[in-house]
Amino acid sequence: MFVREPLQLLKIAVSCWTNTFVNAKNDTSKKNCKNNRKTMPEGQKVDSFKFTVQPFDDDYTGRLSWSVLGKHVLACAENHAGARGFDRLTLNGHRFLWVLSRMSFDMITWPKLGEEYTISTWICRYYRYFTDRCFDIRDANGNIIGYVFTIWAMIDETTRKPQVLEELFGHTFDPYIETERYCSVQPFSRIRLDNSFCLHNRPTYYSDIDENNHVNSIRYIEFILDTFPKQLFSTHQVSHLEIAYNSESYCGDQLGIWVKESATDKYHIVVKKNIDDKENQQTGETVCHCAVTFKPLIRQEKIK
Amino acid sequence: MFVREPLQLLKIAVSCWTNTFVNAKNDTSKKNCKNNRKTMPEGQKVDSFKFTVQPFDDDYTGRLSWSVLGKHVLACAENHAGARGFDRLTLNGHRFLWVLSRMSFDMITWPKLGEEYTISTWICRYYRYFTDRCFDIRDANGNIIGYVFTIWAMIDETTRKPQVLEELFGHTFDPYIETERYCSVQPFSRIRLDNSFCLHNRPTYYSDIDENNHVNSIRYIEFILDTFPKQLFSTHQVSHLEIAYNSESYCGDQLGIWVKESATDKYHIVVKKNIDDKENQQTGETVCHCAVTFKPLIRQEKIK
Repeated sequence: MFVREPLQLLKIAVSCWTNTFVNAKNDTSKKNCKNNRKTMPEGQKVDSFKFTVQPFDDDYTGRLSWSVLGKHVLACAENHAGARGFDRLTLNGHRFLWVLSRMSFDMITWPKLGEEYTISTWICRYYRYFTDRCFDIRDANGNIIGYVFTIWAMIDETTRKPQVLEELFGHTFDPYIETERYCSVQPFSRIRLDNSFCLHNRPTYYSDIDENNHVNSIRYIEFILDTFPKQLFSTHQVSHLEIAYNSESYCGDQLGIWVKESATDKYHIVVKKNIDDKENQQTGETVCHCAVTFKPLIRQEKIK
Repeated sequence: MFVREPLQLLKIAVSCWTNTFVNAKNDTSKKNCKNNRKTMPEGQKVDSFKFTVQPFDDDYTGRLSWSVLGKHVLACAENHAGARGFDRLTLNGHRFLWVLSRMSFDMITWPKLGEEYTISTWICRYYRYFTDRCFDIRDANGNIIGYVFTIWAMIDETTRKPQVLEELFGHTFDPYIETERYCSVQPFSRIRLDNSFCLHNRPTYYSDIDENNHVNSIRYIEFILDTFPKQLFSTHQVSHLEIAYNSESYCGDQLGIWVKESATDKYHIVVKKNIDDKENQQTGETVCHCAVTFKPLIRQEKIK
């Protein structure tokens, strides 16, 4: 399996601060972290990355697309962790890497074509197998336009088993934890789809696969939103979306998507792979659960 | 139909120079162009935009993905034109906008995760209905790693008919033409697929549609590459890809993809929409023609 080398990652972390990913803070003091792979900015727990919605970063309504926002959020997480030396670990010959377990988005408004926005990220806690990473998204004036809350586990690359984080990091993980900045944390929904049927089937292809060799986490969000009528996005925006990842899917897997309205404008979705009976939810392995809330646009925006 | 306003476009053009899209030149002198919508840097015909391959900008092999490269190329074109006031025109109450007619990529090497690259773009000529726009792509050391050549037409937004460019722009278009910089121009292939069969079918969804309300030009490239086995990208890279756009497709269209090997590692592809007979090429409307050349990787790279 392909794993990026520490030196290459350091290069990414440094270059991101001078280009697309502009770190909003300028604290350049450094100290070595325990695993001695990289250096970290001392005392800086939050990193901020500035973006502009470029042509083709938007969807057909002119709003930032899920694809671009989602991948930027993941890249911010990787760059934040990489700059501090804990994007992945090698201990006693074992490699450990982060996997995304759950993610929720609460969006107040969406940045539109040509608008600037800043994503800030930090870790708010870790506990046994998991760590919580928060993000806030601000417009060019510094106003909050969205929050993202994520839960990650660190797994052994070979056994794929989650690891007890305290045992991996000891006390050296504590200096990275930011507890004072407001983080949107909501209990995740209990997603049930009794008596629903498979709405949608689609295979996965080369272009769906990322460098972890499985379907990119954000692609599932696109697959799920693609089950709704395109026209819905002209009158509504997604105000809340949460997704829990259960298992990985790979190039060539056939995904089945179950959708059920749980309340007005609220939907529960389950994605399964390699189902052999479209009518029967019992077949196939669950890839992810998702809950989506649409909110009607208050002022009719300039949308086709 | 949703059309971005000039002021919004100016904001895009300006903001791109200070963020993701970093203009490599600093000539800030301005003069008004004839249509008086915006200002342009005097005498500056080439714009350069700097990027880093961020996490999730790459495909599973760690190379910059087609999706990201292609959309960056289109965004560079739009930003270059927008900064000079000819990204679109409004004359006598008619709106005119650019549509991409043909595009070819010649890639020597692909930037990889964490590497910097710069895309430069300029217009090399215009003639009756068309204009040729060139791009070169350089690595962090300034070495050429690829060329892109494109042909565009300006159409009336209502009638969708191409316009005679001299009549729209008069002499004011001439100062933008750069003829001295090397541009990769090759005659486009004659693409024939006699006796082939439809290899692949896929519908189009919300996430495939861009702000022009049709399937994004780069998405077709992804659809086409998705017809090849994923493993091929571990041993080969795409060295040449050309695509000619015949008609637009929309959300919900069913696309059929015909593929035929024209020589070793060279393929001809036709994409049609809404075919009613998989065996029969005569049905359905042609959306685009494409030719792809794969090149074996010389040094076995670190790929899964």
